[in-house]
Amino acid sequence: MHVTSERRHDDGVREREFTLGEIPGTLWTPGPAPAPLVLMAHNNGLPKADPRLAARARYTAARGYAVATIDADGCGDRPRTAADEQARADLRRAVQAGEPADELLESVVGPLVEKAAPEWRTTLDALLELPGIDGPVGYSGGWAALGIRLAVTEPRLAAAGFHAGGYVPRAQREEARQVTVPLLFLLQWDDEANPRQRALDLFGAFGSKEKTLHANPGGHTGTPWFELEDGCRFLDRHLK
Amino acid sequence: MHVTSERRHDDGVREREFTLGEIPGTLWTPGPAPAPLVLMAHNNGLPKADPRLAARARYTAARGYAVATIDADGCGDRPRTAADEQARADLRRAVQAGEPADELLESVVGPLVEKAAPEWRTTLDALLELPGIDGPVGYSGGWAALGIRLAVTEPRLAAAGFHAGGYVPRAQREEARQVTVPLLFLLQWDDEANPRQRALDLFGAFGSKEKTLHANPGGHTGTPWFELEDGCRFLDRHLK
Repeated sequence: MHVTSERRHDDGVREREFTLGEIPGTLWTPGPAPAPLVLMAHNNGLPKADPRLAARARYTAARGYAVATIDADGCGDRPRTAADEQARADLRRAVQAGEPADELLESVVGPLVEKAAPEWRTTLDALLELPGIDGPVGYSGGWAALGIRLAVTEPRLAAAGFHAGGYVPRAQREEARQVTVPLLFLLQWDDEANPRQRALDLFGAFGSKEKTLHANPGGHTGTPWFELEDGCRFLDRHLK
Repeated sequence: MHVTSERRHDDGVREREFTLGEIPGTLWTPGPAPAPLVLMAHNNGLPKADPRLAARARYTAARGYAVATIDADGCGDRPRTAADEQARADLRRAVQAGEPADELLESVVGPLVEKAAPEWRTTLDALLELPGIDGPVGYSGGWAALGIRLAVTEPRLAAAGFHAGGYVPRAQREEARQVTVPLLFLLQWDDEANPRQRALDLFGAFGSKEKTLHANPGGHTGTPWFELEDGCRFLDRHLK
């Protein structure tokens, strides 16, 4: 792991940009005391530098967590192939035209999850070597599909918060019943692009004994601020 | 209002039994500082002395609220008519036999809500006269139908937490869209006696701009303990 830049914020949070081989990442840490680690993923191709992700990460770090995120292959700071560009352009066109996009989403998001999950696990290995970063590990992310994959494959994951908005490939919908860690599942009731019933079915499918759905009115990006606090309290219950 | 008995608990909460005309009630208050008032209703005919209600009330009082509950007409400590007994016996028989109980529930719960709401408002008037009890007023109850009625008719109500389990009469399902106070709506995902879809439809119908659904797995009485804490934090946001 190679730290490429570092800064300190007013709230005492230290922010480090790093690379791990080809993977670019960001790590936010609170003061010097050991802190549990939270992996925070943004949905699909959204870059790790997205201000909403950065704001959530800093809030969570200020609450006593080490928070890390990475860019997925072909996303954010990473090079894109012509095929990546084409697939995304096709997808955008279909969504804008109001055409059914499930098959296109499956072909874009499915491989993205498959590729991303091992990179997140590699990152986890490297982060847990750093001083001041401690287990157990939580996941908190817009990207439910990646969270499901990690919850099923990564035994160090002790709790996970997912946002229901975002396409969950068939493989992860199947895997949902194998998820057993405590879950907090956030749903925006009027999310135009993500069918509500599919999200409710997914909540029903999770195998976890402790799973809580929080639903609020409004569209995809309208999650109320208090859910960020609730999310930290959920992590507190399971990681502290 | 006539106080009939009083005791103090280890946690500093003062518990007073009172009568207000024919209405028997219980009031739990924290220390001497003025506290916002929370009306806490148990579903339908369940008595105010039910240990689950008493435990929730004491927890909430210890968190800095004055909490009050009363027995509905024909319930708990109040006399029942032969007709009350008969209606309840018919209902129990239908539910145990797995027969459709909606019409019976409508005929029992509908009038119960109509009768209870003005009694709760009378109680509210009397409680707000007491020293150390302050507005704004919250509602926190298993009894969603009564909560809806109060939220629509009682302008002093500033926030309400409902439990989705329990029959909501047609009149209150209609009134749900007129509810505009911030809401926290608790759903037990596997509540055998209360259809999930009906609860989700009710959540969708509420007119409140701020409304949050918390759903957890398990049957009617399986609400996890952390929802009690979440409920108090919801009240804190709106009443303190």
